[in-house]
Amino acid sequence: MGDRLVRRIPEPTVVRLPLYERVLRDMRSSGTTTVSSARLAEVAGVNAAKVRKDLSYLGSYGTPGTGYDVVFLLSQIARELGLDQEWPVAIVGIGSLGRALARSPGFTSRGFPIAALLDTDRATVGEEVAGCVVRHLDELAEVAREQRVAIGVVTTPAPSAQDVVDRLVAAGVSSILNFAPAVISVPENVLLRHVDLSTELHVLAFYQSHPEIAGPMLAGTRASA
Amino acid sequence: MGDRLVRRIPEPTVVRLPLYERVLRDMRSSGTTTVSSARLAEVAGVNAAKVRKDLSYLGSYGTPGTGYDVVFLLSQIARELGLDQEWPVAIVGIGSLGRALARSPGFTSRGFPIAALLDTDRATVGEEVAGCVVRHLDELAEVAREQRVAIGVVTTPAPSAQDVVDRLVAAGVSSILNFAPAVISVPENVLLRHVDLSTELHVLAFYQSHPEIAGPMLAGTRASA
Repeated sequence: MGDRLVRRIPEPTVVRLPLYERVLRDMRSSGTTTVSSARLAEVAGVNAAKVRKDLSYLGSYGTPGTGYDVVFLLSQIARELGLDQEWPVAIVGIGSLGRALARSPGFTSRGFPIAALLDTDRATVGEEVAGCVVRHLDELAEVAREQRVAIGVVTTPAPSAQDVVDRLVAAGVSSILNFAPAVISVPENVLLRHVDLSTELHVLAFYQSHPEIAGPMLAGTRASA
Repeated sequence: MGDRLVRRIPEPTVVRLPLYERVLRDMRSSGTTTVSSARLAEVAGVNAAKVRKDLSYLGSYGTPGTGYDVVFLLSQIARELGLDQEWPVAIVGIGSLGRALARSPGFTSRGFPIAALLDTDRATVGEEVAGCVVRHLDELAEVAREQRVAIGVVTTPAPSAQDVVDRLVAAGVSSILNFAPAVISVPENVLLRHVDLSTELHVLAFYQSHPEIAGPMLAGTRASA
């Protein structure tokens, strides 16, 4: 860095920031005002050197002997994560998973309101799920504009996923989170992330079948928030 | 490595192996017999050098000019991931998310059969979900033994999660996947992984609010499988 105008935050750090944010919010709720990197590391289940490195990307170095100011660090992370604005979410595919996500307080937390639910099933369209009436996918462009949808979440069966993603992109939604087990293409200017719910089962099976290398794994995952 | 008896596969590689496994299975289904690292990288949405490095941990280097043998590579990855055996899964907490996971073909794919569903709610216990009758959590020890449960999945509300994890551990379940937004502790010998469904929304919000560093991100996530 140094000679670059933009501080480049590496992706693994970006992925850990929401974790720190949640842990720090819990600490703030319980009245904690300062936290050492060691304590933050312990609660987050990340090693302390990694925590210090991650936070240094935000320009936060803590005070020797005292640690980090919880409220200030939280505001830095929240700003970095773009949590100073709202990101309205549209979920497409209101089957079991779409419903579960719409209803999950862990998914649509502060900052990510459910703005729209869409499906093509005649029996589902018009139904109210988590306080939101399901609209037909054909209304996507209109709904996306009305509700200023920032993020599209795809929970359709795999064969429909590419078509749905194409429609989201056509409707101007440029960040997409895909839960369908399908290979998806998007234009260059669109952000696409994929969540494979079975990945973590595979990772557990890997470590359980390789007890000889499980040791260092444990330390990194024992605590989680 | 070299002088070590155990090849240490780094965690980021472990997390990518299920992705390669799925992409390779699709290729095998469509009759592809060999694949270059470049093609595998393109479909998996990972850069080619990383694919080669990841596969080198398995002792797989491919044949210059031809690439990797799909069937052979698939069997290597499946063996490494422990997919040559079954990992019966118990889901505790049969609310929206527990049901969605039980019903999701992407979650309980080959190798991870749903062996048990458990809850404490009187109205839910006895119900059949995804072909499995929900049992009371008090029967956990018995069910875990009978069904040889290898992995416990926790989809309860946050306040119940630690108690459920303690019960799973007491029942001899030593791999746990927690979806509850709670900080959980487990003994040293237990593997615990945490899935935070909102992390990817935060990651998308981060990159959308930092378009200046979104470029390199796109390449890594454009295609996903």
